[in-house]
Amino acid sequence: MLERIKPGPSERKRLQEVSVALISRIESMAEGCGLELKAMLVGSAARGTWLAGDHDLDVFLGVGVEDDLEKALELARRISPDHREKYAEHPYIQARIDGFEVDLVPCYLVDDASHLRSAVDRTPFHNRYVKLRIAGLEDEVLLLKQFMKGSGVYGSELRVGGFSGYLAELLVLCYGSFAAVIEAASLWKPGLKLDLEGRGRVEQADPLVVVDPVDPGRNVAAALTLNRMLQFALAARTFMARPDIEFFFANPPAPLSDREIEALMEERGTLPLLIEFAAPDVVEDVLYPQLRKAESAVKALLERKGFSILRSDVISYGNRAALLLEMEVWRLSPACRREGPPVWQADHISRFLAAHPKILSGPYIKDGRMVVEEERRYAQAADLLAAELASLSLGRHISASIRSGYKIYAGVELLAIKDDGYRIFLVEYFQARCIRPDAA
Amino acid sequence: MLERIKPGPSERKRLQEVSVALISRIESMAEGCGLELKAMLVGSAARGTWLAGDHDLDVFLGVGVEDDLEKALELARRISPDHREKYAEHPYIQARIDGFEVDLVPCYLVDDASHLRSAVDRTPFHNRYVKLRIAGLEDEVLLLKQFMKGSGVYGSELRVGGFSGYLAELLVLCYGSFAAVIEAASLWKPGLKLDLEGRGRVEQADPLVVVDPVDPGRNVAAALTLNRMLQFALAARTFMARPDIEFFFANPPAPLSDREIEALMEERGTLPLLIEFAAPDVVEDVLYPQLRKAESAVKALLERKGFSILRSDVISYGNRAALLLEMEVWRLSPACRREGPPVWQADHISRFLAAHPKILSGPYIKDGRMVVEEERRYAQAADLLAAELASLSLGRHISASIRSGYKIYAGVELLAIKDDGYRIFLVEYFQARCIRPDAA
Repeated sequence: MLERIKPGPSERKRLQEVSVALISRIESMAEGCGLELKAMLVGSAARGTWLAGDHDLDVFLGVGVEDDLEKALELARRISPDHREKYAEHPYIQARIDGFEVDLVPCYLVDDASHLRSAVDRTPFHNRYVKLRIAGLEDEVLLLKQFMKGSGVYGSELRVGGFSGYLAELLVLCYGSFAAVIEAASLWKPGLKLDLEGRGRVEQADPLVVVDPVDPGRNVAAALTLNRMLQFALAARTFMARPDIEFFFANPPAPLSDREIEALMEERGTLPLLIEFAAPDVVEDVLYPQLRKAESAVKALLERKGFSILRSDVISYGNRAALLLEMEVWRLSPACRREGPPVWQADHISRFLAAHPKILSGPYIKDGRMVVEEERRYAQAADLLAAELASLSLGRHISASIRSGYKIYAGVELLAIKDDGYRIFLVEYFQARCIRPDAA
Repeated sequence: MLERIKPGPSERKRLQEVSVALISRIESMAEGCGLELKAMLVGSAARGTWLAGDHDLDVFLGVGVEDDLEKALELARRISPDHREKYAEHPYIQARIDGFEVDLVPCYLVDDASHLRSAVDRTPFHNRYVKLRIAGLEDEVLLLKQFMKGSGVYGSELRVGGFSGYLAELLVLCYGSFAAVIEAASLWKPGLKLDLEGRGRVEQADPLVVVDPVDPGRNVAAALTLNRMLQFALAARTFMARPDIEFFFANPPAPLSDREIEALMEERGTLPLLIEFAAPDVVEDVLYPQLRKAESAVKALLERKGFSILRSDVISYGNRAALLLEMEVWRLSPACRREGPPVWQADHISRFLAAHPKILSGPYIKDGRMVVEEERRYAQAADLLAAELASLSLGRHISASIRSGYKIYAGVELLAIKDDGYRIFLVEYFQARCIRPDAA
């Protein structure tokens, strides 16, 4: 396995050359404009824990005073014409340099991790902590990261909610080897706390707490969701029972033909509803929480009105985004019940009856309240969505996007969208497997 | 109004003659066989508070010792060949005598209401209490009873859950007149307590508590449901706003034609399901609680499986009985979700997966639990009922009846039953009005 994921000598050499050249170039540019700045290679490239073929470099531009942060950003912009402005907690520059994707991130240089001014300032401390301890365990980290990729749990971005590279490194430091991590993880339950330095200060409610050795108040696994944690535990358990190299490869499914998807839909007999709109121009870590919020709001609306949902998901593909709601009940009887005030509240009763002039049945008394039956406003889930979607609280960017236009696809209409990423999402949605097919 | 409901001189005379003759005949029969027995006319006939045309007599056969109860019952059997054995708390005889329907009820003669041996022994005390106080107020009682009949709240049998004649009499004694009862009732709220003698001893949770003046631990209104109490309050309020003689007449709806009922069903767009079976051979006060219990059990089954019910009701007609369930959602997607154990319970997970071999989607993890999607056993409410009805706990007599055969009618199939009582029930069900049409 290692042969396939461990960078070879030429890849190592090239990364070494590119990063050294980049760092000295940045520092001389800084000197040229009188900026006091320290460029640092951080992340897996700096620690020898990058996976073969992974051409990402993280270079942090450390400055000492606030005014210099903006100057460092300006300098980063000048390093390559092929760059994009990005924004996580702070602005940074993503550039293509000599075939590498380089994140150039301005940060403060602080003496002590207890004086951090922002999350990015913490990274150099992480780098130092791991570098000092990881020597000899790099291969274990590579195996673990690749296993996590193969199990679909690698990546701490909010879209995934999985394990970061730093978290994988800490797990190897904690347990001692890839095999030991797998063995331990196969028995994991939520509520587990790992504290390498025995300095954890804060009680966290997260399913897994890994105390940050450079900042004991922080949980390195804060972004890990309960389900990803358990997905990893399950993969570890399955792998231990039947070790197989297949566990290290994700093998995304091939897109299915229209006919195959139609057959899947028919078998399920549900009604999938897809609400599709322009993806707001924000990074994934801003987009996905908003998509999840919108998903919750739409589900709550549907359920409040008596519909029911088998499952739902969100996706962004190309410059589009969508909510998928798979309906278990999508049509209700035209007649519905409206409960009014208690019978003894004469004034409220009069107003209630005046507000419901066209009744099918009633008024009658139920549990002490006045009730009428009248025609339901929206007997079809799709009609309800079309009427009320725009007035829901969907998250700032999604709301704006929905207001400028959206489309609802129902049932086989979902096949009108041909995008490959969307089609793979659909297949993965219908399969919904968290255990590898060959291992289940 | 009084002209129509007050018994005329000839009716009074006839009732007087018949009851005097009956009582002396019973007492001489008792003497003839050496039975010490006191025959008493009780109820509205004894108090002058019966409604014109109401040909019911209640005659109680009081004895002093337990052995004589059976002898009194035997004597009652011999009074008329045209009789039926009945059973409430104790056995009694219902006989037709000279055009009157006579209940002949053996009871104990006790000195003091605090020494009652059963509920029927209380009746002579009620009789004495009312007779001593009601003189001059008989017409008020007649008006109130007739108003209650017109509002559909008269009758303390469990099928109705309304007001007994004795309760109506106590209300008139309490408030002083029909008009005063109506005025007070128009403002009634649940939690009201009326205590004529100021001797109430027991805290009751019933919506209306009327302390029994002859037995202060008992609530005369115990059988009155919250909804009937409020239906009466609402009728009183509406009558005060627009007094109209129509309030005193129930005007049951005419049965509708098949076409009219089909139109009603179409407008509602629900699916009515009728479960019809032989009515168990028990009195209404035993039958109706069991029908209500069966109704609850069936509703709970349907709702537990994801279906939803707009409204439901029960009926007995002729020698048949039925549960009516009007479905708001009666078909679900074939695909359904099955939630399994938490992911870390390895043994349970293995058993769960083995128990669900044919999955449509999954297994996946949701809220820490293993989930699969598979084909739903019953996607149609009627199929679920047909499969599981017999195994529900429906009440002893109903369960036995269902086991010996039942039929499910769906939608327009309900029209296959032609019985007039059933057809009126259907119309009343669809109208479901507790306010008079002309008064709403």
